Amino acid sequence: METKDYMEKLFYPKSIAMILASRKRAWQVIGIKGWNYEGDLYLVSKSEEEVAGIKCFRDVSDLPDHIDLAIIAINRRKLKDIVQKCIEKKIHTLHIFTAGGAEFDEEGIEIEQAVHDLIKNSEVRAIGPNCMGIYSPEGKFSYDPRFSKKIGSVAFVSQSGDLTSQFVHVENYYGVYFSKVASIGNSIDLTISDFVSYFSSDDKTEIITIYFEGFPRFDETEGKRLWNVLRKNKKPLLLLRGGISDQGKKAAESHTGTVATNERIWEAIYNQTSALKMKSYEELVDSTQAFYFCKNLLPKIKSVVLITWSGGKAVLSTDRLMELGINMPEIRPPTRDQLKKMISIGSIRNPLDLPWIDSTEKYPRICNLAINEDYIGGAILETGAWETSGEHFNRYFENLMKIFENAKQLGKPFLISLPHSHNYKQRKKFKDRLIAQGIPVFPSILRAAKAFLNLYEFQQRNS
Amino acid sequence: METKDYMEKLFYPKSIAMILASRKRAWQVIGIKGWNYEGDLYLVSKSEEEVAGIKCFRDVSDLPDHIDLAIIAINRRKLKDIVQKCIEKKIHTLHIFTAGGAEFDEEGIEIEQAVHDLIKNSEVRAIGPNCMGIYSPEGKFSYDPRFSKKIGSVAFVSQSGDLTSQFVHVENYYGVYFSKVASIGNSIDLTISDFVSYFSSDDKTEIITIYFEGFPRFDETEGKRLWNVLRKNKKPLLLLRGGISDQGKKAAESHTGTVATNERIWEAIYNQTSALKMKSYEELVDSTQAFYFCKNLLPKIKSVVLITWSGGKAVLSTDRLMELGINMPEIRPPTRDQLKKMISIGSIRNPLDLPWIDSTEKYPRICNLAINEDYIGGAILETGAWETSGEHFNRYFENLMKIFENAKQLGKPFLISLPHSHNYKQRKKFKDRLIAQGIPVFPSILRAAKAFLNLYEFQQRNS
Repeated sequence: METKDYMEKLFYPKSIAMILASRKRAWQVIGIKGWNYEGDLYLVSKSEEEVAGIKCFRDVSDLPDHIDLAIIAINRRKLKDIVQKCIEKKIHTLHIFTAGGAEFDEEGIEIEQAVHDLIKNSEVRAIGPNCMGIYSPEGKFSYDPRFSKKIGSVAFVSQSGDLTSQFVHVENYYGVYFSKVASIGNSIDLTISDFVSYFSSDDKTEIITIYFEGFPRFDETEGKRLWNVLRKNKKPLLLLRGGISDQGKKAAESHTGTVATNERIWEAIYNQTSALKMKSYEELVDSTQAFYFCKNLLPKIKSVVLITWSGGKAVLSTDRLMELGINMPEIRPPTRDQLKKMISIGSIRNPLDLPWIDSTEKYPRICNLAINEDYIGGAILETGAWETSGEHFNRYFENLMKIFENAKQLGKPFLISLPHSHNYKQRKKFKDRLIAQGIPVFPSILRAAKAFLNLYEFQQRNS
Repeated sequence: METKDYMEKLFYPKSIAMILASRKRAWQVIGIKGWNYEGDLYLVSKSEEEVAGIKCFRDVSDLPDHIDLAIIAINRRKLKDIVQKCIEKKIHTLHIFTAGGAEFDEEGIEIEQAVHDLIKNSEVRAIGPNCMGIYSPEGKFSYDPRFSKKIGSVAFVSQSGDLTSQFVHVENYYGVYFSKVASIGNSIDLTISDFVSYFSSDDKTEIITIYFEGFPRFDETEGKRLWNVLRKNKKPLLLLRGGISDQGKKAAESHTGTVATNERIWEAIYNQTSALKMKSYEELVDSTQAFYFCKNLLPKIKSVVLITWSGGKAVLSTDRLMELGINMPEIRPPTRDQLKKMISIGSIRNPLDLPWIDSTEKYPRICNLAINEDYIGGAILETGAWETSGEHFNRYFENLMKIFENAKQLGKPFLISLPHSHNYKQRKKFKDRLIAQGIPVFPSILRAAKAFLNLYEFQQRNS
């Protein structure tokens, strides 16, 4: 079988075996059941008759042949034997959940080496060890049952399990849904490049996101292969790397047991391939959202109009945007004179500082006249969540929609910053209403601005 | 009277007059009434008989003499006349709410000049124009009735009104309370230096926070005076500046009509006075909280142990902390060997990556052994808000308390990062429980780390 076929087994398995199922980790079973997984689910346990109402097989050898996916969670010292048995049962793919591999100690390295050799000489392919596994809304199963069942267009491959969970949860919260997610840990067999290659040609995937920590210990070709798939890929591809500093590299070694790389190679990757460099976890979170909502609204100019409700925040954010290299050109005559006549306090230069008028009829008119200017690439608007109902708010919300519709017609992105504060419930409500309309929401102007830059960067590379 | 006496009139007024009161801005009156303000409240209105149940005077000249504070909200073209009348009625202090001054246009500059000249030749002192005014929990009144009535130890003086509101709300939310807050806008009379001088010697104030945009247009001595008070001050003093970039300076001009300054002067201020440089609004928010909770836990060494529940976040955060110049020394033998024996997966090198054991008895033992090392200056722990009740959570919470108590005994700060995610209600509950115990809570490891650096910096300057 080709790697692509193994990927289909991983993301759309017709049968899953859990080895070993246990009551302590019953959540794994309950999760899959709760998701209405439509394939066959087999449990293997030495000690338990049943887990979560499903009868257990005694041994891997009792299972039917040709199961699509086995999830292996056993003591690392038994790992080699179990993998051997899985190979004998012609299981197609393995998710090795078991930790305590190369990231942990010398014994872990030896275990990984042995398992790696077994797999390489077999027909089975594996993810892990030391990983959470697969989330496939279309395949109707997920390692975490709380992830959204909605099918989206973002694919994620990651060398960190908890980071994967955090990322999926926060993206779901901001209205972003996934096509396919794989937490692959130490990646002793299937690697980041295998997944990127698959996602690049997957019809269901429009945006590719990656958390990378290091190259696998037993695969000297992965660097070259990654380079090639990143060169070929045409989709927005957001790459976050951990283990950049010396101390960070050591932390990565203790986390995924992977091998660090030369920083110069990475600069070449960011300069010469499709990979967009995410400088922090937050930037990955925000830029994923930006691409999800603004795929047809990529800015053609690296400039924004900033619209605020606080003059101080306007001034501070202007400083930050200048540091980032985003332009904030002043609104020029004749529009400037037109705008000036419409306000009695505040400012219409850019930033637009428009206190007290956000629910009036002239508010969207002012904003739209500024956004319409051809030297403006997009708009970032900061708002609070003071209230989320009542006549005043409804008029304000309609105003925001008028601004959004206008920007959309022009093909310019409209990003909203809604900072976290004391009004956490209203923020949730307001955020939900905005994203339901297709407007992305960020926690600060700066974070929105960094996402804007990535949209611009992608547009530039592809124009 | 001395400036200090005027400050007392501002923060503890025995009488307040609102000129002009209006139903449209009834919130100003309702706010003060709702706060159980204990002094005399007078309203002046040309057109209305009463506002919010309080009878209105027809004219300023009808008011009694020697009122402590007048809040002036009128059309800017009438400002000069009203200020003149206030001077005649021997009112002690003015809060000029009216906007449309130097920040707006040429006419605004002329109005400010005229009002400035009037005030300078009188016994009255003023804040504003273009500002929200005073929040004084001890004086029992506030321009925003939703601010906490609790009296705390943070003083804030700011040239932005909305930024002031945002700052107070978010600090209150994180368990931080204020002694005195003044939004002073364009500051044509009383200036930032006047407030800093007063806060420096105010018994009720332990931490001074500032948002600065520019020097007043009519006062050439303010630079020198600010330098002097910042030199003399001994309290933690957190200074956030807006209007640093060229474009930011223009935005500041449109916001407070103030005059920008040379960047080199500011480097000297940060190097040679008590001012701690806040590089963003978020850093001001976080560092204020850190000083509030950790005033007796200032780190003596610029190093932390980082404790996480996600290996990926641990790796990424290590990279960020290295960039900031915070050390994360590896835990050394013999402690290292002792710790290694206590885990079967994860890492105890630093970061401590401790999956699955957070509610076990060994979790705080591992953390405390690391924190006890004398090359560790403090601890940052990242947690999620998966659950906030039940036996597992309660054991986890007790574990966190054990770590906190241990750090406290050692005089080392213990900061918690609790990122915003989908579980926004649980985050609120968890955050409330932590701050009730005196543990500061931040939205990310990086933000906690920047606050840690400021604690360290203050300790260094004063040791």
